[in-house]
Amino acid sequence: MKRAQAYRVVGQAEPRCDGAEKVTGKAIYTVDVKLPGMAHGKILRSPYAHARLRRVDASKAEALSGIFAVITRDDQRRLGMFGAAYKDQTIVAVDKVRYAGDPVAAVAAVDEATAEEALAAIEVDYEELPVVTTLDEALAPGAPLVHDASVAGGELMGQHYEAPREFSGTNLCYRFSYAKGEVEEGFAASDHIFEHTFTFPRVQHFSMEPHATVADVEGERMTLWAGTQEPFTLREHLSDIFHLPLNKIRVIVPYVGGGYGGKLAVKTEPLAAALSWKAKRPVRLAHTIEESFRTVTRHPARVKIKTGVSKDGQLIARQCLIHMETGAYADAGPRVTQKAGYRCFGPYRLAHMKTDAYTVYSNTVPAGAYRGFGTLQVSWAYESQMDIIAAALGIDPLEFRLKNLLKKGELYTPGDTPVDCDLKAGLLRAAKNIGWNGKKQPNRGQGLAVCMKDGGGTYKVSSAAVKMNADGSVVLLTGTVEIGQGARTALSQVVAEELGLPFDDVTVARLDTDVTPYDVNTNASSSTVVMGLAVQRASQDLKKQLLRQAAKVFNVRPEQLTLSDGKVHGPKGQSLSFEALMQKIFLSKAGEMIGRGAYQDVKSSKAALGSPTTFWEISWGAAEVEVNRDTGQIKLLKYVSLADVGKAIHPVLCEGQDEGGVMNAIGHSLLEEMVYKDGQLLNPNLVDYRVPTFAHVPKEFESILVEDQNGPGPFGAKGTGEGGLLPVAAAIANALYRATGLRLYDLPLTPEKVWRGLQSGK
Amino acid sequence: MKRAQAYRVVGQAEPRCDGAEKVTGKAIYTVDVKLPGMAHGKILRSPYAHARLRRVDASKAEALSGIFAVITRDDQRRLGMFGAAYKDQTIVAVDKVRYAGDPVAAVAAVDEATAEEALAAIEVDYEELPVVTTLDEALAPGAPLVHDASVAGGELMGQHYEAPREFSGTNLCYRFSYAKGEVEEGFAASDHIFEHTFTFPRVQHFSMEPHATVADVEGERMTLWAGTQEPFTLREHLSDIFHLPLNKIRVIVPYVGGGYGGKLAVKTEPLAAALSWKAKRPVRLAHTIEESFRTVTRHPARVKIKTGVSKDGQLIARQCLIHMETGAYADAGPRVTQKAGYRCFGPYRLAHMKTDAYTVYSNTVPAGAYRGFGTLQVSWAYESQMDIIAAALGIDPLEFRLKNLLKKGELYTPGDTPVDCDLKAGLLRAAKNIGWNGKKQPNRGQGLAVCMKDGGGTYKVSSAAVKMNADGSVVLLTGTVEIGQGARTALSQVVAEELGLPFDDVTVARLDTDVTPYDVNTNASSSTVVMGLAVQRASQDLKKQLLRQAAKVFNVRPEQLTLSDGKVHGPKGQSLSFEALMQKIFLSKAGEMIGRGAYQDVKSSKAALGSPTTFWEISWGAAEVEVNRDTGQIKLLKYVSLADVGKAIHPVLCEGQDEGGVMNAIGHSLLEEMVYKDGQLLNPNLVDYRVPTFAHVPKEFESILVEDQNGPGPFGAKGTGEGGLLPVAAAIANALYRATGLRLYDLPLTPEKVWRGLQSGK
Repeated sequence: MKRAQAYRVVGQAEPRCDGAEKVTGKAIYTVDVKLPGMAHGKILRSPYAHARLRRVDASKAEALSGIFAVITRDDQRRLGMFGAAYKDQTIVAVDKVRYAGDPVAAVAAVDEATAEEALAAIEVDYEELPVVTTLDEALAPGAPLVHDASVAGGELMGQHYEAPREFSGTNLCYRFSYAKGEVEEGFAASDHIFEHTFTFPRVQHFSMEPHATVADVEGERMTLWAGTQEPFTLREHLSDIFHLPLNKIRVIVPYVGGGYGGKLAVKTEPLAAALSWKAKRPVRLAHTIEESFRTVTRHPARVKIKTGVSKDGQLIARQCLIHMETGAYADAGPRVTQKAGYRCFGPYRLAHMKTDAYTVYSNTVPAGAYRGFGTLQVSWAYESQMDIIAAALGIDPLEFRLKNLLKKGELYTPGDTPVDCDLKAGLLRAAKNIGWNGKKQPNRGQGLAVCMKDGGGTYKVSSAAVKMNADGSVVLLTGTVEIGQGARTALSQVVAEELGLPFDDVTVARLDTDVTPYDVNTNASSSTVVMGLAVQRASQDLKKQLLRQAAKVFNVRPEQLTLSDGKVHGPKGQSLSFEALMQKIFLSKAGEMIGRGAYQDVKSSKAALGSPTTFWEISWGAAEVEVNRDTGQIKLLKYVSLADVGKAIHPVLCEGQDEGGVMNAIGHSLLEEMVYKDGQLLNPNLVDYRVPTFAHVPKEFESILVEDQNGPGPFGAKGTGEGGLLPVAAAIANALYRATGLRLYDLPLTPEKVWRGLQSGK
Repeated sequence: MKRAQAYRVVGQAEPRCDGAEKVTGKAIYTVDVKLPGMAHGKILRSPYAHARLRRVDASKAEALSGIFAVITRDDQRRLGMFGAAYKDQTIVAVDKVRYAGDPVAAVAAVDEATAEEALAAIEVDYEELPVVTTLDEALAPGAPLVHDASVAGGELMGQHYEAPREFSGTNLCYRFSYAKGEVEEGFAASDHIFEHTFTFPRVQHFSMEPHATVADVEGERMTLWAGTQEPFTLREHLSDIFHLPLNKIRVIVPYVGGGYGGKLAVKTEPLAAALSWKAKRPVRLAHTIEESFRTVTRHPARVKIKTGVSKDGQLIARQCLIHMETGAYADAGPRVTQKAGYRCFGPYRLAHMKTDAYTVYSNTVPAGAYRGFGTLQVSWAYESQMDIIAAALGIDPLEFRLKNLLKKGELYTPGDTPVDCDLKAGLLRAAKNIGWNGKKQPNRGQGLAVCMKDGGGTYKVSSAAVKMNADGSVVLLTGTVEIGQGARTALSQVVAEELGLPFDDVTVARLDTDVTPYDVNTNASSSTVVMGLAVQRASQDLKKQLLRQAAKVFNVRPEQLTLSDGKVHGPKGQSLSFEALMQKIFLSKAGEMIGRGAYQDVKSSKAALGSPTTFWEISWGAAEVEVNRDTGQIKLLKYVSLADVGKAIHPVLCEGQDEGGVMNAIGHSLLEEMVYKDGQLLNPNLVDYRVPTFAHVPKEFESILVEDQNGPGPFGAKGTGEGGLLPVAAAIANALYRATGLRLYDLPLTPEKVWRGLQSGK
């Protein structure tokens, strides 16, 4: 562990720069944007999961008073198709609808009630088609096809995605395969082979703020206020859809009430834009909670995992067969599949590995990116299986893991970045803090899990600018979206630290693609490292200019100067405030100095793996549960989460990310599941679909930040935010097993499942 | 004359980039900004021209329903004083009011009517004081003092302004003196000495959009939407007034409906901000026309000009005594005075010159910056006197001018930039086109005038950024305010020309001090040259990056490449679109490249003159009038205007500036005058105060752009915009004289004055 340097601002729990606005209710989210003459949009959604569109007639709706525009498939004809990975989506359905909720038409009206009325006046004749709403149905030979023809491939962050030709006539749309060593030989050399299948349910991202867009299209100019995690990428999609050059499109991002991946890529923003274009006025299109449930979900998945071990508990070979159900449209499905496929081996030493991961269409809500990009689905499987194997071999699960964990510096796969963290130390700490192997109480059990994912994204273009004003105060321009994670605060700390400024002297400008330096997106726990480096470099660029100017004033060399407390200090104790320095440069309270910085990593590999990872995001979890044998309810008594953050720029925010991740995971571990029947989603609301509340917070809840100062980000930071949720499901399931002997393979671990399991004595 | 180069975009009358928005009424001006919860502000103004404030009691107003805030002098105590040159202003009057219209209190209410009601409920006890509303009254010994104590000096664009100590106890507040040669010796050596006094009336700027601000102050953050010509400088003023760092203040500039100098410096923006701060909600404070009349005017002036000539018509010496009446607060008065003083000698060769120019307070509306900064007042005098002298010597006014005009390369004053234009050629052209010395018709006459001012400002800090998007389209970031002059269009042309792009591929981002690169202000005919160079340099910086990248692709040297039609062309005919080039750099439709450029000229001279001028703005005017001897009405039949623009980036916009300048000047030449009686302004409205209409456009109206490609700006451009209006008044007065023998010394040349003059046989 490197010794921690003394920082003034970094490492401090500075007040969130968006805190006051948010707690006073003054913060503007997209839903709060009001423009003069603004109309309100509503979407007509298909009641059928799969149907041919015989007729869509909006003439009665168009004739109603208070209606400014109706969008039907006739309008789609002038527009391009879209989608994160494939161009398989249209703003409204054209030939057929592919899931219950698929947009069929949309209306812009004087108010929401009038818009709803108009929706009822749109006449649609559907011809129902057979549906596939599970992996089994979708993969069955001769299954009804969600997409009749093969979909057009597309570019996503420097990689080309395309369905293999042999998938024609099936619901498969993407395959990722990877192998190292000779997995069959590995299995042949193993003493024991374990094979299990785990499933991960269909779960909603559930951001507090549903999707919303306010669009203002005026002639050839398009301005969008959107709750998006990738305004620049959204702009690029809009450019393709509307055949407009990028300089005519402006995306402004107000505060965003949560993203979790559900606000990546394109959702209904182009539909809002089309409504505004046709209505010739601004249009607000804000989803209800129910509509967001019908817009994007996480990927339901089935993971078949086969592992070969030696009798002394050495992992030898692992093979995974993964199916990710991406719903009616691919969205980011192929990339999520790719990542799930690559990350399914866990943080363990394996001489032989092989994976085949498939993306599968079905007649359900499209599944897109989610916090961890597929890791969640596979870590649930591999960390459950680790305990199964340990039990079978009679080895303590902690010991079994310690025996197999990769060491710092070891390779996960050849060509990737070596492991950058002491996995064993972290696991031992988690075990110690949960009180591993302490006194066993009835119906109580403890479980461990450790997960690893490549972090920071494999395609990164980030840039930033830091402007010093005439009084020495600073404005930071960054394209990172503030989705609640506190990025503005942490990035301001980087600036303040680098420039020797008080934290309060830095503010962050609003995000507007016209003026904010480019950033590809806010995802993959990347902002602190990737944008952080761009921001740090911009600050250093500004610092260099300040030092050069100050060196002239003091008649010394720049290297003899230091910055602190908003001042430049010379070698002989002389000092000059930034304000005074600016006055010397501009001879007035005027002018500014700008530093710029960028981070770019776009090495395209023809192989699907992309670049070596920026860093490894590693997280450990230890859970203690109590099981009520009468009700089947699992009570999470205690949870210890460790996150390797390298250096916590803002420890409280890091803990917030980590704790939030755990809470998020308690949802899919114990509670959440979107229930389908006959192609219909039954519980798209907060009465029937339960998300964790404060009542689910474990009484003892510890979040530990591992700070080895060894990250590639500013001041040794690594990214965090996705790690915390990865070990939770397996840690709880392992604890359940140790409490009751019951092993479950399908999330969520509901009381019903537990009770039935206990009853059947499995 | 340099040979004009062939340009593709520069020199073309491209469609105005703000045209469609403006003609369709979609363009957003400050008055159109609406924010949720926005209150409406109104100002209580003093009915007295000069009075001590005994009591200001707002308690009844505060108790009314629908009132969110009342600002009185009690609130001023926490705030700093302000003013363009001196800190002599407060947001509302504190101890006394100094002109009829001086803000005494302000209210923010649920609507304007409620605010008006509340104003009536504010109780104010005034103790009337004697007033001074003319230069004579203000300068009389023992005159009542507008400011009891001497006002605090201040910084304005790199210069310090301060009232000389000996002005204490007078209404004088600034003096500018300059001398070259020995003026007394010059007069002694002259054969004839002429001495005349000319006056220039009090005239309003009359922008189509009165002053308006929407302020939103939230805790320590202040956001203003303001119709201002200098958002960055306004931000600096606000920082001083509210003791807030610059990073907490954001000024956004929507479209501005005319400036003419009247929207420079600080007007009622801080009052709007104070209302918002106290009301804890956004506040809109929009002036009526009448209120803008009571906010700022041009400077009424008295110019005494004494000129010595030889008997053969050679100018030898000139001395000027100038008094500029700046009203109740100095605003930019000292700087206007300085410029009037420096520019009073005209474009003539004078061995001896001396000037003393004074700024004088009075109990009238404050006078501030105006198109030409004092040149108008003095050119009216010197170009009238040129004709008087010519007539006295029996020399043709054209000949007399030709004999004395400075040659290209000659010095106006030592240390300044040599004259950069052929003054004689321009004058001959104006004379020719007006039909000088043609057949004389009864009651018709022709007049000439030629004027010169240092242009581009003496303190300039401008910066710009040019961002190329992934598809090769470009966004320009510039702090120049679009006040109707077409700056966004012309600057976009500079970008398109430099980068080899179609005009339409460039858009200009909205102006927002948080994100737009710094620019000191939009004034002094400076934008095309000063900001133009910053923009050109930013484009060249981007170009260099593009060439470097393309050189790698083609495997050639960057110098072998050219840019045109949105493509890079190689030496062997190969070409690559910018979009394809960006794709090669970023491997996706992603990323951007940014060029940056700046122009800085802040050489502070301890002398008042500042730096050598960036360029000389030169304009020639020739008028033909017909005088109705029965009514005294002057009809302007024909007008020829020549403007030396170096290179017209956008010829139609240049002509628009030139023609607009002439029309503007027809106002103060023939029509406009603010009439005061007993300290009260009698005609602050468009019924009683007449501005020129289309009926005043001369039937024959020619605007000629002189293009010698010799300006310092991009592609040889010089600044334009202020020049056109300078010769108008003198050219008309000289024509009046040649038509009737009547010489008038006081503007405007109203029918009454002309009729009286003709009757009295003067």
